[in-house]
Amino acid sequence: MTQEEKNIEKKVAAERAVDFVKDDMTIGLGTGSTVFFSIMKIGELVRAGLNIKAVSTSDATKQLSESEGINIISIDDAGEIDLTIDGADEVDRSFNGIKGGGGALLFEKIVALSSKKNIWIVDSAKLVNKLGKFPLPVEVIPFGYKRVFKIIEEMKLRPVIRLKGDDLYFTDSGNLVFDLHIGEINDPVKLNEELKLINGIVETGLFINIADIVVVGRNNSTEIFNK
Amino acid sequence: MTQEEKNIEKKVAAERAVDFVKDDMTIGLGTGSTVFFSIMKIGELVRAGLNIKAVSTSDATKQLSESEGINIISIDDAGEIDLTIDGADEVDRSFNGIKGGGGALLFEKIVALSSKKNIWIVDSAKLVNKLGKFPLPVEVIPFGYKRVFKIIEEMKLRPVIRLKGDDLYFTDSGNLVFDLHIGEINDPVKLNEELKLINGIVETGLFINIADIVVVGRNNSTEIFNK
Repeated sequence: MTQEEKNIEKKVAAERAVDFVKDDMTIGLGTGSTVFFSIMKIGELVRAGLNIKAVSTSDATKQLSESEGINIISIDDAGEIDLTIDGADEVDRSFNGIKGGGGALLFEKIVALSSKKNIWIVDSAKLVNKLGKFPLPVEVIPFGYKRVFKIIEEMKLRPVIRLKGDDLYFTDSGNLVFDLHIGEINDPVKLNEELKLINGIVETGLFINIADIVVVGRNNSTEIFNK
Repeated sequence: MTQEEKNIEKKVAAERAVDFVKDDMTIGLGTGSTVFFSIMKIGELVRAGLNIKAVSTSDATKQLSESEGINIISIDDAGEIDLTIDGADEVDRSFNGIKGGGGALLFEKIVALSSKKNIWIVDSAKLVNKLGKFPLPVEVIPFGYKRVFKIIEEMKLRPVIRLKGDDLYFTDSGNLVFDLHIGEINDPVKLNEELKLINGIVETGLFINIADIVVVGRNNSTEIFNK
């Protein structure tokens, strides 16, 4: 699939998900190139009179949303979020996923766990039988990160420290990201717990039992999977 | 025990622990009112010719140590640390402890786990049969902290958000601290894992299976417990 074909699938999935957004909702907005199209669509609707509040998962999403006229509020003012729309880097048949390619995994997971319903929007290439071909991001405290790196290496999970140009990449929380080139994750639930219990790891990009609906773009239309 | 009596016990324990520091070691330095006395003693020895490098667990310890002439290096330049001296808020008979009253739990745990040997220095009032009378600190991501607070409340662990004057208290990593007024912790290993797996919690003040030696000040002398 070419990048252009992918973008068409992203756009149709992203816009289809916006049908779930209703007046007076508080919605969560993910981060990344697919959610971009949802934000643009919601911006249109807001300018046409839709009344919603939104919680953002990153500085980038906040800026984009506000420039589109969407009312962004703090997560702690929001209380429970009605619905969150987010992308994913991979989704398996059990609706488990890998997220964090864009670096916003920590805030994305917190927003997702604060939401009554989570919709993921993906192009068809992101549906997989087993997670792990996409490198699994984990967010790591910079202080003493080499120790964590070594532990993950010894687990044979092939970590690579994420860079931005020639410098280390830092998340919105000031942490590092390791991308784990695992290949195939046989037990994502267990791996998620093992990683989360390592001191110095703040969060993992394994999103287990979080998505309720997956909207998949396929060519010029969408498939909707309900849990 | 009066505060003055406690201070005498802290000082004798803290200075006794420094006997374990040898030339050419890389040592870890904890944070707090007991470690203060170790740092002062190490400063004396350094000025008399002791050659060591040290890794600090907080900005406060770094500043104090450097003003005493101790060579502070970054944890990632240190590699493995030979010996760490730190205080504790409570220690039980299995050498498990609660730490983080001073707010440095995250960096203290990372330094401890990077150390070949850990010595804790405490006054005699800190030895307990069961942990939990001292409020257990947990470090929490500010983004969405109210959700985490509610989860901990529902676990009946009685969280209180730490303040500094009228403002929220922030750690050196920019996170919040909740102090959990539990009373009595029956299974510290299990509780530590349950808390660590909650998304948004970065670290807990339960230090399980970390201390190798506990030096207890009792009146004007010390007792040393080896694991």
